[in-house]
Amino acid sequence: MALQKLPFRSLIDIDRNSSTPIFKQVANGIIQLIESGKIRPGYRLPASRDMSTIMKLNRTTIVAAYDEMCAEGWAEVLGKKGIFISKRLPIIKPKSFGIDLMKGDGDVSLPTFYNKVTFSRPPSRELKPYQLIINDGYPDQRIAPITLILDRYKALLNKPSFHGKLMKESSSGNQALRRELSIFLSATRALNIETENVLVTHGAQLAIFIAASMVLKPGSTVVVGDLNYVLADKLFEQLGAKLIKVEVDENGIDVDAIETICKNSPPDLLYVIPHHHHPTTVTLSADRRQKLLELVKRYKFPVIEDDYDYDFHYENSPILPLASADHSGYVLYIGSISKTLAPTIRLGYLVASADFILEASKLKQLIEIRGDVLFEESVAQLFNKGDMQRHIRRSVKLYHERRDQFCSMLETSMKDVLQFKTPLGGMAVWGTFDNDYSIPELVKRLASKGIHMNDGSVYRYSTRINGIRLGFASLNQDEMSKFVSALAEVKC
Amino acid sequence: MALQKLPFRSLIDIDRNSSTPIFKQVANGIIQLIESGKIRPGYRLPASRDMSTIMKLNRTTIVAAYDEMCAEGWAEVLGKKGIFISKRLPIIKPKSFGIDLMKGDGDVSLPTFYNKVTFSRPPSRELKPYQLIINDGYPDQRIAPITLILDRYKALLNKPSFHGKLMKESSSGNQALRRELSIFLSATRALNIETENVLVTHGAQLAIFIAASMVLKPGSTVVVGDLNYVLADKLFEQLGAKLIKVEVDENGIDVDAIETICKNSPPDLLYVIPHHHHPTTVTLSADRRQKLLELVKRYKFPVIEDDYDYDFHYENSPILPLASADHSGYVLYIGSISKTLAPTIRLGYLVASADFILEASKLKQLIEIRGDVLFEESVAQLFNKGDMQRHIRRSVKLYHERRDQFCSMLETSMKDVLQFKTPLGGMAVWGTFDNDYSIPELVKRLASKGIHMNDGSVYRYSTRINGIRLGFASLNQDEMSKFVSALAEVKC
Repeated sequence: MALQKLPFRSLIDIDRNSSTPIFKQVANGIIQLIESGKIRPGYRLPASRDMSTIMKLNRTTIVAAYDEMCAEGWAEVLGKKGIFISKRLPIIKPKSFGIDLMKGDGDVSLPTFYNKVTFSRPPSRELKPYQLIINDGYPDQRIAPITLILDRYKALLNKPSFHGKLMKESSSGNQALRRELSIFLSATRALNIETENVLVTHGAQLAIFIAASMVLKPGSTVVVGDLNYVLADKLFEQLGAKLIKVEVDENGIDVDAIETICKNSPPDLLYVIPHHHHPTTVTLSADRRQKLLELVKRYKFPVIEDDYDYDFHYENSPILPLASADHSGYVLYIGSISKTLAPTIRLGYLVASADFILEASKLKQLIEIRGDVLFEESVAQLFNKGDMQRHIRRSVKLYHERRDQFCSMLETSMKDVLQFKTPLGGMAVWGTFDNDYSIPELVKRLASKGIHMNDGSVYRYSTRINGIRLGFASLNQDEMSKFVSALAEVKC
Repeated sequence: MALQKLPFRSLIDIDRNSSTPIFKQVANGIIQLIESGKIRPGYRLPASRDMSTIMKLNRTTIVAAYDEMCAEGWAEVLGKKGIFISKRLPIIKPKSFGIDLMKGDGDVSLPTFYNKVTFSRPPSRELKPYQLIINDGYPDQRIAPITLILDRYKALLNKPSFHGKLMKESSSGNQALRRELSIFLSATRALNIETENVLVTHGAQLAIFIAASMVLKPGSTVVVGDLNYVLADKLFEQLGAKLIKVEVDENGIDVDAIETICKNSPPDLLYVIPHHHHPTTVTLSADRRQKLLELVKRYKFPVIEDDYDYDFHYENSPILPLASADHSGYVLYIGSISKTLAPTIRLGYLVASADFILEASKLKQLIEIRGDVLFEESVAQLFNKGDMQRHIRRSVKLYHERRDQFCSMLETSMKDVLQFKTPLGGMAVWGTFDNDYSIPELVKRLASKGIHMNDGSVYRYSTRINGIRLGFASLNQDEMSKFVSALAEVKC
């Protein structure tokens, strides 16, 4: 157990010339540790044999020290379990990180050596298990081939060659996964890329963070949609950039407005979600994409194209991304594997010129050194065997059905208060209420029925739109019915 | 297969009023895709049945179009495998990311919209499997309980409650793992912390990145050791900070020199590795730690204490970290679970005041939203059941033996060219050669024997010290003998 115990020998000074008997010095030393908060009530002392080894003292000395502590009420013997610091002692507040800091009371002055992050998350509310949670558009991880990935991971652990293979991996990501992604993206999106154009990241958010960090400096300007994916806006602001908000209508971001901005002064970056825009789920129309490409060529500004939803279309086929056209490297294309598998699986990718990817991989190394290359290799094998492609096809079929069921349920029982358009793809419905309708109140009533839903405030930070994303992809028929009937009951 | 195919319908315009027959329009459309590089030689066309569905055209029309293309030599039928774009066509260089950009030739001007990262990694050399690779101090993942983690992960997948649980997880990391770490760190390091003091990160590097990003601005000053952990230095520089290098001797970083700097003007940050310093493996002495704490109190500057090696001591017990003393929140304590398990497992933690952790978790959300909370929960269970603690004890015993074997082997066969001190703990030996001795030449000769070792240049970026870290922890006896005898053969 030594490793789980404190280094008592270096914590307790024994003075063999002192008039105080050694056993008393040991007891006093432990009591000092209690008083200084290093040992807390309920702490189990090492068995006398272990302690005598640790302290390099005779065991009888330790036993005497423990007896002394018990006699003084500092410790108590609990049956066979051992000797514990008495729970009846007043809890000494841990000092190491500061009593006030520990609890973070506002009423005491805190050190000011660090910057607050200009971004407050909605508080995560406590939930009991088995409750129904409505997310804002996640896949249903219950159908994802995660077990398959874990099995391949296990198999790799037993490959004698993997140790060496592992060490070869660069921070650009597992080579096999980069290659499989370049093939998959070329086949589905006409990107025509090679392995060297792909950077694997720990989630698409990290891909956005890295791409933006490479391009932005404090004071840079970023054109974003209004509304826009909140974590992208907050990230750009965190990097010191200034947001220029451009309206998003039913055909996506207003490209004429972007042209006006460019004529004045081209932005340092444009962030665009071609389909399906977050949060409003609209698709950027083909003609706007053409015009956008012309603007990029004329005014030479980089674009982060966040195409997380490309694979999930239920009616028309997807429109090819900007990145599939000739843009001489100005389009930084980002996608997510988490959206294909499960939110807990953190895998995303950045596609860019080989040079950009090389620089980006250096930055990635400074942020996380590397990913779990065995996990990445396992996912690569799923792509290689077609398992991922099959899973995507199954998901699209299932989510298509769920979208139809969900929208008709909403149509039937919510149309009087909720306005929405059936999305052409994706995993969520964007619903809006009249401005005087209180979503927080609705959410409170749902919570009383054991259903958790965010209150949409996260989308209102920059506008008065009273809307909310209702994720349907992760809800099976029962959950869907339970949710919508609850909605119908508590609406008013 | 639709999903793996391109959206041909939106790519090929069909004009029913045109004089050109439809089948010819289809063929011309596909040929345009080839000429524009969107489809490449060897691309397999959809089966005529699939294509007729995709294009919403009569199948005979598709067959006619394919025949036309074969007749013109654009495509060819390969037995039963299907119809493929002819490989004999000149490869159209993919244009989307720029022909030159694709290959990253230096001889063409590249867009200048992004910043180069001021950090060049040593090129990762190609290796065949089964070769021996000498790392600079990794654990032996062959003994790590990774299978146990994967089994628990699988079990969690089948827990009906996990879906809800998952959605509750905040970006601070899995609650159970934060709690287990607070208990483990309190028991082993006397940190006396609660769950709210722990941030779980995707590797310790991310913990350093987040902590530094919270504290540093462009122009900030950071006191670091010379030598120092390279990726920390590069990270601070990447954040725009100025490095103030302070000598590291056999007792760790020179604290008197730090005091001199403070008297002049306190730094914005101090980065210290208490044990075992990277790369030199020395331990920061207890008296220097005391003095450092006094300096922190007097001059009020934050400290990143990177204690990645605390659990791996082979002789004396470890010295308690600065973070275990009263520092009112100025010490940001960082540790690594990757060092305990395997480099491919990316888990680390940041320990700080509850307020700091709250801000840091917001920043973490902007970087990666969350980690793989199921994986984190699985690791938490290993801590809870004591599996991790047992694994650490086993590792320490094994690495202790390996250190002794390795050092005696080096003593026997390398002492004439290599100077080193037996490290008190950790996973690597820091060895230095005379300045005129060429490690790169040594590395080249080892490579010819199928053994890969870095050439130490990564440690020389800031100094003339001719040294190298030799990782022994991951080498079993055979590998160790093979390595050292090869070393002895090629040295000179």
